[in-house]
Amino acid sequence: MLIDGVRRRTIWEAVDGAVEIIDQTKLPHAVEVRRIATLDDAYRAIAEMWVRGAPLIGVTAAYGLAIALHSNAGDAHLDAAVARLADSRPTAVNLRWALDRVAAAVRPRAPDARAEAALVLARAIAEEDVAACRAIGEHGAALIEAIAARKAGPVNILTHCNAGWLATVDWGTALSPIYVAQERDVPMHIWVDETRPRLQGSALTAFELGQQGIDHTVIVDNTGGHLMQHGRVDLCIVGADRITRSGDAANKIGTYLKALAAKDNGVPFYVAAPLSTVDWTIDDGVAGIPIEERDAREVTHARGADAEGRVTEVLIAAPRSKALNFGFDVTPSRLVTGIVTERGVCAASQEGLEGLRRAGP
Amino acid sequence: MLIDGVRRRTIWEAVDGAVEIIDQTKLPHAVEVRRIATLDDAYRAIAEMWVRGAPLIGVTAAYGLAIALHSNAGDAHLDAAVARLADSRPTAVNLRWALDRVAAAVRPRAPDARAEAALVLARAIAEEDVAACRAIGEHGAALIEAIAARKAGPVNILTHCNAGWLATVDWGTALSPIYVAQERDVPMHIWVDETRPRLQGSALTAFELGQQGIDHTVIVDNTGGHLMQHGRVDLCIVGADRITRSGDAANKIGTYLKALAAKDNGVPFYVAAPLSTVDWTIDDGVAGIPIEERDAREVTHARGADAEGRVTEVLIAAPRSKALNFGFDVTPSRLVTGIVTERGVCAASQEGLEGLRRAGP
Repeated sequence: MLIDGVRRRTIWEAVDGAVEIIDQTKLPHAVEVRRIATLDDAYRAIAEMWVRGAPLIGVTAAYGLAIALHSNAGDAHLDAAVARLADSRPTAVNLRWALDRVAAAVRPRAPDARAEAALVLARAIAEEDVAACRAIGEHGAALIEAIAARKAGPVNILTHCNAGWLATVDWGTALSPIYVAQERDVPMHIWVDETRPRLQGSALTAFELGQQGIDHTVIVDNTGGHLMQHGRVDLCIVGADRITRSGDAANKIGTYLKALAAKDNGVPFYVAAPLSTVDWTIDDGVAGIPIEERDAREVTHARGADAEGRVTEVLIAAPRSKALNFGFDVTPSRLVTGIVTERGVCAASQEGLEGLRRAGP
Repeated sequence: MLIDGVRRRTIWEAVDGAVEIIDQTKLPHAVEVRRIATLDDAYRAIAEMWVRGAPLIGVTAAYGLAIALHSNAGDAHLDAAVARLADSRPTAVNLRWALDRVAAAVRPRAPDARAEAALVLARAIAEEDVAACRAIGEHGAALIEAIAARKAGPVNILTHCNAGWLATVDWGTALSPIYVAQERDVPMHIWVDETRPRLQGSALTAFELGQQGIDHTVIVDNTGGHLMQHGRVDLCIVGADRITRSGDAANKIGTYLKALAAKDNGVPFYVAAPLSTVDWTIDDGVAGIPIEERDAREVTHARGADAEGRVTEVLIAAPRSKALNFGFDVTPSRLVTGIVTERGVCAASQEGLEGLRRAGP
């Protein structure tokens, strides 16, 4: 998608075997590129959230494993590299999925062929992600078009966190339907939850939408319920970091609250994610999905640009108060109108998800 | 309540006829006192939120009117002063209630007796507020004690925004039950919603609880649903800026989302407020209560102390994105377990509220 009018992806191969990424912790104040040339670089890129979003994390991990095997492709190093990368973010199922896939593909090969095989596969995973995101966009855009067909004025869509192209290689998940609908000239206005504590909404989603020229308004996370009570939201679309086989969805903390408000006000609430996000081993998401606990400093502090444009962190809480920072919550399937995947839209249920799985690519 | 171990109120009379307040926009980083010596000072104190919280706004307006009448107590000036002060914050019903009460009491008097009469009444309103808040605390503490009696460990209470002593003259509304329960040695832990955009939770509620030595944890507003899903909240208590005769409650934006989560998880959800908060002219709060829209800059920026302790405002949103800032939302009575008033706890219904009104003081 566009940055300053130029078509970009979030991760690409440099000429020397390294990969490059956009450091998303610097957005929206600066667009900075970072090199990933070692296993440690890849670990840091994920753990420190230079890249974030389940699909992009998976692709970055796959490239990271390929890079790690370039220096040493022995079994012990392969296992250690997988273990280290898997440890970088505990909630994202795509991370584990991508690592297992690369590891399984290269393990039968001779060590001196493993790095190249891993690179080919990382590249394939990236292209699959682009294709899956575009397909999610096509299926989701139909939902937006259906609403546009029965109302005057723009379709008002609320989204939480960033599940845009910055969370994937290109297009995004929750935002891909919006980008496809834009191509089809559907009038839209997007409510952007700022998404404390890390502000991926006001910093990343708003940045993306602004660069793409899509009308949007940033709101604090507290606002969505009020807007829905007053008929100002036609549709909610969010991403997911993990979906259970029964259709419960783990996504950025606060998603559950928006889903409750959508249910209470009859607003359709969709989760958009590739089928690789489904963890078929878990049924009950609230009981079964481990929720990452992050640094309390993200809660007690906020980061932004001061009057001189310097990125500064300020203490916003009472100085000696402690804080707790859960990264995600789980939205039970009963609150989810449907799941938008690359193979179509299904009910948030085992039947719905199994149906798409059986349908095949 | 305590600041640095010293017993304070939020508003008090200076020796020269002015009143003094704690400038709450400077908390938690500094405790600064401001003088209110003119009508304009009182208007600014309310409009710029040096004082905030429905009860304290009412008392400040009453004192402001008394001060305005000191310089000119003619009918035209009385009317103009009431109109100007009423305009300082549109949502708080206590503001209008206090102004009408003072105006009605002084209008029958000769102009030269009006200022003194207004001052006596302002003082009485302040003392009534202290008594009402203490009574709310007594009634609400019983709810906390009942939970403590049937569980091991501390009672976990979630609150949104600041309805503590800083929002009143003393004790507070939603926090008063906690302070009274503390006197009774009830073990408690408080979850403090930070309450974006103005952060009255992390800045004021956390400050109050810390000064009082009560165990608490600051969380982003997105977190409460997750905590309730996992049994980590026993009780929610919030304040209210306006309650309709049917028991709908307008409170800080985001309250409705917490009430939905409480309902979904079987967590009792109480609104604590003096009966003067009830607007008997409105039935349906969502349709009938006007919601204040505040400066978008509160959403696009965050304010806190930088590494050198200087209070700084930082831009946290994408630079050219617009924002919208609703101050309040309305929680429908069906989500409210009960309303804690100075006359006892009642159902959130016309029957419940009328019952307390008829009971008399």
